[in-house]
Amino acid sequence: VEAVDRALAGDRRALARLITWVENRSPEAREALRLLYPHTGRARVVGVTGPPGTGKSTLVNQLAKEFRRRGQSVGIIAVDPSSPFTRGALLGDRVRMQELSQDQGVFIRSMATRGALGGLAETTAEVMAVLDAVGKDVVMVETVGAGQGECEVARLAQTTLVVEAPGGGDEIQVLKAGILEIADIYVVNKADKEEAEALAAELSRLLSFAPASGWQVPVLRTIAIQEMGIVPLVDAIEGHGAHLRVTGKLQADERERVRQQILALARQAILARLLEAAQADGRLEALVQAVARRELDPHTAAQRLVSLLKALEA
Amino acid sequence: VEAVDRALAGDRRALARLITWVENRSPEAREALRLLYPHTGRARVVGVTGPPGTGKSTLVNQLAKEFRRRGQSVGIIAVDPSSPFTRGALLGDRVRMQELSQDQGVFIRSMATRGALGGLAETTAEVMAVLDAVGKDVVMVETVGAGQGECEVARLAQTTLVVEAPGGGDEIQVLKAGILEIADIYVVNKADKEEAEALAAELSRLLSFAPASGWQVPVLRTIAIQEMGIVPLVDAIEGHGAHLRVTGKLQADERERVRQQILALARQAILARLLEAAQADGRLEALVQAVARRELDPHTAAQRLVSLLKALEA
Repeated sequence: VEAVDRALAGDRRALARLITWVENRSPEAREALRLLYPHTGRARVVGVTGPPGTGKSTLVNQLAKEFRRRGQSVGIIAVDPSSPFTRGALLGDRVRMQELSQDQGVFIRSMATRGALGGLAETTAEVMAVLDAVGKDVVMVETVGAGQGECEVARLAQTTLVVEAPGGGDEIQVLKAGILEIADIYVVNKADKEEAEALAAELSRLLSFAPASGWQVPVLRTIAIQEMGIVPLVDAIEGHGAHLRVTGKLQADERERVRQQILALARQAILARLLEAAQADGRLEALVQAVARRELDPHTAAQRLVSLLKALEA
Repeated sequence: VEAVDRALAGDRRALARLITWVENRSPEAREALRLLYPHTGRARVVGVTGPPGTGKSTLVNQLAKEFRRRGQSVGIIAVDPSSPFTRGALLGDRVRMQELSQDQGVFIRSMATRGALGGLAETTAEVMAVLDAVGKDVVMVETVGAGQGECEVARLAQTTLVVEAPGGGDEIQVLKAGILEIADIYVVNKADKEEAEALAAELSRLLSFAPASGWQVPVLRTIAIQEMGIVPLVDAIEGHGAHLRVTGKLQADERERVRQQILALARQAILARLLEAAQADGRLEALVQAVARRELDPHTAAQRLVSLLKALEA
């Protein structure tokens, strides 16, 4: 595919087109990904997640600027939970573009979760592979934390930052607990606010309950909007990268990610075939009717559907 | 299974045990669900979702009390995004139990999302079926909105309430947009707060962009903690139920839910078989290694895995 060669040569419009293909599951995407795949495996992949309102986008922009100062090219994927009809994703894009658009070493892409055909995690993994293949040294994935889908996206990263900020409600406590397990580095942003120290202390306390591993999760303070604390944070990201390489965890984690990705894609392929077969001969509809009439329970119906698939393939 | 008969006869401990089986995917669960299934299909299923800190739990408790006053028995499933090691779910349970525990007509169960084996939506659907089968007139499912997983859970309900409260951050706007599409009724809780009117106006404005349907999504004000606005809200829930019945949407929606449930269960069954087969002969591991070495791309690897399944079944 011509667009692949052009994207590999550094053409930004070709790169944007490739990503659109991947997002839309266009027929061209499969072939493009196959051609790009041998070029992947060099990027540092950093996930940034946390509750809304913690200043993640500003933080990601500052991190991008610091990585650029260190001579690294940067790709940013902002996974945005906005609805297609409000176009929040596009708007966010434009605001960011104004700040970083002068810099050819940064490529930013927003993905609306509602728009993603196929699984969100699968599509994000493929967009990451594209940015990796075209030579971005650092690929950052920004998601709004809390949901299952977002946690899956965070697991695609080699290093995951969880961002918190003072001033949440009562229930924020619970959310923190839910994403504690995925954090490699904890960031308390808006650290100039009054309650920041209490939040950092609480996070350290919660982290002390986590099972021991070779990596001690640091709790770092930033004031992203004033560009404060960014250099130590990038140092910590590099430090975690070195830890992953030295311990062999980088390879082990990648194999696990590859395993999950293969299984997810296989599952999608099987389901697509199942749907097609079951809808073609009205079998699925008959099963649905039987369950709706309570003549059959859903598990038994699912079992019959699976047998149908077997019969078709025999 | 004896526990099924006892749960159907109103034994709360037997009911609790059934739900634990379902949550843990115990061997007993399948048979129990098969026996219970013919008794399902009578409950009104109400989903309550929204960002953290909006007072959803208090609201659900007040709704439960009002449904009880109207002579209806109530089951509550609180889907809690807390981590297993902090035990947030259990804690929440106890606080609620104190308030409603005197009432044998109310059954409350918290589910930790991290603890749910299998899909969260599938497990929740099965717990709903159990509560429906034992004769709860109203089943309420409470989730923290935002994530994909939570949206899936909300889709299990016949009527979905989305709860907002004044005082969120900048990004709350985007979250609202993301869950606008799933709301049948919008609730502005903490309506005594200053910014409540502005929030309600903004929600009405956003709703005006939504595609037209036969149902006009109302925006209702509550102050759950003072038990205000609860009666009109329950009236609106009943009104939406009547709308679903009159238009035939109740049956159409249920068929769609059944279809999704059958497909999800079939997909799980196929994936389990695929995993077992691929791991048994080391095939999956070989594919993972090839992809990690960039000799193969993930799609091609997935394709080979699917072919393996075909070969096994032939």
